[in-house]
Amino acid sequence: MRPLDMIEAKKQGQEHDCAQIAALVAGLMTGEVPDYQMAAWLMAVRWRGLSRREAADLTDVLVKSGRTIDLLRAGLEPPFVDKHSTGGVGDKLSLVVVPLLMAAGATVVKLSGAGLGHTGGTVDKLASIPGFRVDLGIDEIVQIARATGGCLASQTADLVPADGLIYALRDATATVDSLPLIAASIMSKKLAAGAGTIVLDVKVGKGALLPRVEQGKELAALLVELAAGAGRQAVALLTAMDEPLGRTVGNAIEVNEALEVLRGGGPEDVRRLSLALAAEAMAAAVLVPSSGRALEVARRLLSSGQALERLLRLVKAQGGEPATLERGEGLRLAAQSAEVAAEADGDLVAVDARLVGQAAVALGAGRSRKGQTLDSGAGIRLLVQSGQRIERGQPLAVVYATGEARLAAGIELLRKAFVLSDDPSPAGQAAKPSGTVLQVIRAPQGPPKRDEVRP
Amino acid sequence: MRPLDMIEAKKQGQEHDCAQIAALVAGLMTGEVPDYQMAAWLMAVRWRGLSRREAADLTDVLVKSGRTIDLLRAGLEPPFVDKHSTGGVGDKLSLVVVPLLMAAGATVVKLSGAGLGHTGGTVDKLASIPGFRVDLGIDEIVQIARATGGCLASQTADLVPADGLIYALRDATATVDSLPLIAASIMSKKLAAGAGTIVLDVKVGKGALLPRVEQGKELAALLVELAAGAGRQAVALLTAMDEPLGRTVGNAIEVNEALEVLRGGGPEDVRRLSLALAAEAMAAAVLVPSSGRALEVARRLLSSGQALERLLRLVKAQGGEPATLERGEGLRLAAQSAEVAAEADGDLVAVDARLVGQAAVALGAGRSRKGQTLDSGAGIRLLVQSGQRIERGQPLAVVYATGEARLAAGIELLRKAFVLSDDPSPAGQAAKPSGTVLQVIRAPQGPPKRDEVRP
Repeated sequence: MRPLDMIEAKKQGQEHDCAQIAALVAGLMTGEVPDYQMAAWLMAVRWRGLSRREAADLTDVLVKSGRTIDLLRAGLEPPFVDKHSTGGVGDKLSLVVVPLLMAAGATVVKLSGAGLGHTGGTVDKLASIPGFRVDLGIDEIVQIARATGGCLASQTADLVPADGLIYALRDATATVDSLPLIAASIMSKKLAAGAGTIVLDVKVGKGALLPRVEQGKELAALLVELAAGAGRQAVALLTAMDEPLGRTVGNAIEVNEALEVLRGGGPEDVRRLSLALAAEAMAAAVLVPSSGRALEVARRLLSSGQALERLLRLVKAQGGEPATLERGEGLRLAAQSAEVAAEADGDLVAVDARLVGQAAVALGAGRSRKGQTLDSGAGIRLLVQSGQRIERGQPLAVVYATGEARLAAGIELLRKAFVLSDDPSPAGQAAKPSGTVLQVIRAPQGPPKRDEVRP
Repeated sequence: MRPLDMIEAKKQGQEHDCAQIAALVAGLMTGEVPDYQMAAWLMAVRWRGLSRREAADLTDVLVKSGRTIDLLRAGLEPPFVDKHSTGGVGDKLSLVVVPLLMAAGATVVKLSGAGLGHTGGTVDKLASIPGFRVDLGIDEIVQIARATGGCLASQTADLVPADGLIYALRDATATVDSLPLIAASIMSKKLAAGAGTIVLDVKVGKGALLPRVEQGKELAALLVELAAGAGRQAVALLTAMDEPLGRTVGNAIEVNEALEVLRGGGPEDVRRLSLALAAEAMAAAVLVPSSGRALEVARRLLSSGQALERLLRLVKAQGGEPATLERGEGLRLAAQSAEVAAEADGDLVAVDARLVGQAAVALGAGRSRKGQTLDSGAGIRLLVQSGQRIERGQPLAVVYATGEARLAAGIELLRKAFVLSDDPSPAGQAAKPSGTVLQVIRAPQGPPKRDEVRP
């Protein structure tokens, strides 16, 4: 079937078979399928969707477009656990969850993309640690994981290269927001990196990629099913992302907050959700005898300092200077800072995560376009929480940036994020506290059978 | 608004304003808007449609992408009438309608694209006349029209160049079948060629671009409205295209049949529909005092030989040898021919126009891809009509081609076009006789106002 016929078929809502999907992706990689045909197909998919079977086939075809990591053959110790978040504002959870899982006995090789738009990326946060190297080859990744039990690195170019090509086209053709394309993109990268157990943090709400709960549920179910179809364990937590997670947004500033949590302090929402994610992953990977005890084990690994110790070892193995983390004040922030004060009295009914994220981008802590260099010291420290009574002149946040222009641009956006009201109880409008677990989605018993794929 | 934002907006079903459409088309022409973004936008349009206002704006933007012909300023005699068919099998009507309109006193400058797929193109048929030139510049077109009252030529590259770019993308991305894109493409070319009155033959049925009557009606109404919005008169005839028009399909063979009709003979369906189209156009262009008399006038212009004389003059002016048309046997056909005989007894319940068209392509009379050279002598002469009782061994058609391979390929497809049944009255399945006028669609009183367009 020619690409043109595939576009026609998808436009009519028909299903492709696996060989057709494989040929389309292969054609894109060789250049035989031109960008404009792929773009039309992507929009037809955005319109008509993909069946579960097509999504599974696409995922498999993407995995087979490049190298994959076989962690067992590389001599690493199972279970192999990975964690993924669909992206949130102030989402530094990987910095807590990954060392928790390592401390629980899992090997965690987690590869992540750079952040884009209002949500940050784990590797960007890690890169704010002086000396820390995130761009590693597969051999180096395996070596570090062998030495420390884990590795946190950038997505390598030789893993799932077809996803990179397709994502660039989706980004330029308004076809990012297709659930099956999102799911295939996420899961192909997780599968290629070799994890046997995957815990997924699917965020919904104002600051999330998918604002609506129903969409989040659908994505979570699809991700879990794709993992199960590929013979992996997966569990997805549907979590609230209306307000930023924790009290900090940025890179160095979020690393500092994650360290607070690993030291037993830090904001309650970050702590609670990190423990929940780690516990679910531990139960799924059978690292604990009963799933009921997982949360208790996770709490102990946190309070005992074992998780912190794991992170420090990992930082050292990846070239970072643990000393910079061991200092009380943590990583250094940008030299210029300013307070954002309330301009009126009122009840703080919401802190809009999306606007906070956009303010962080304006401050230099995030990217509005790919390839942009970040200012690792830039960021936001929130001083208030929704539900609080605010008085005129009260400081709401401190912002950090390099240069007055960025500082001013960030402040302007951040001001809009604080929603003050004189009405003491806005009926039914209260946002879910950030990090609230709305639902846990696990695979149905017995992974579904699927067709053999020709690579 | 960036092209990406336009794709997003259209994906969400939002409406573009005229400036946005103009910028998108201008960007495509300069290369600033890459093909893949245009392809995604086209698929989003195929999905969400265009409002009447957007279709009108797109039409106008397309017209302004290149040169236009001002027939009045060029010194030609009004009224300026044009004729367009959405494409049928055996559709040689322009060869009859255009000289009829010229004989009625209209100036007819009709530019057409080359045929593609199972439907033929008027210029391909004309090009089968020895010496006849279809590739003319605008100046030459005007000069010929000044001398003869008309010109039948290929679409010139400097008219509506943006349509060419967009059509090539639509053709490669399965986005041809969008009613507003079809309408804007057709009407922009008609408007650029300068006609004040346009008669449209919108075909529906198995052999038509649009099989369903409802779609045909919608397209006809949109075309008429686009013409009215641009200050032109238009009338659309919705006509049946389940079976081939006339008894011949090909190029030289169709010219010969058109000449038969112009001499007062020929198949009844071709004659009847040609007269209907000419009469509607004459009434719309006020070439006759009352629309009731138009059909009578058209009949007289045909029977008196005035239309034939007009065609012969036009052929001569465009370099053709009228002598080849004046011979009794007409243009020469391909040297090899074969009869297709019935393999069983039965009632001929249908002659499938699409399959006949595909057989013509296989014989060398049509193109399966752009730029293919045609064999002007190749074609099909049908010897039977649906409704007839057929006996085993009875000749159904004669096919003409150059080379045994083409002959065999054409015969194989053509056999399938004849649907024989032993059931004497297939309930309600009877195809409408080809060329039947299903409906006449005229513009509502007073052309609708539309926004001023920035070129």
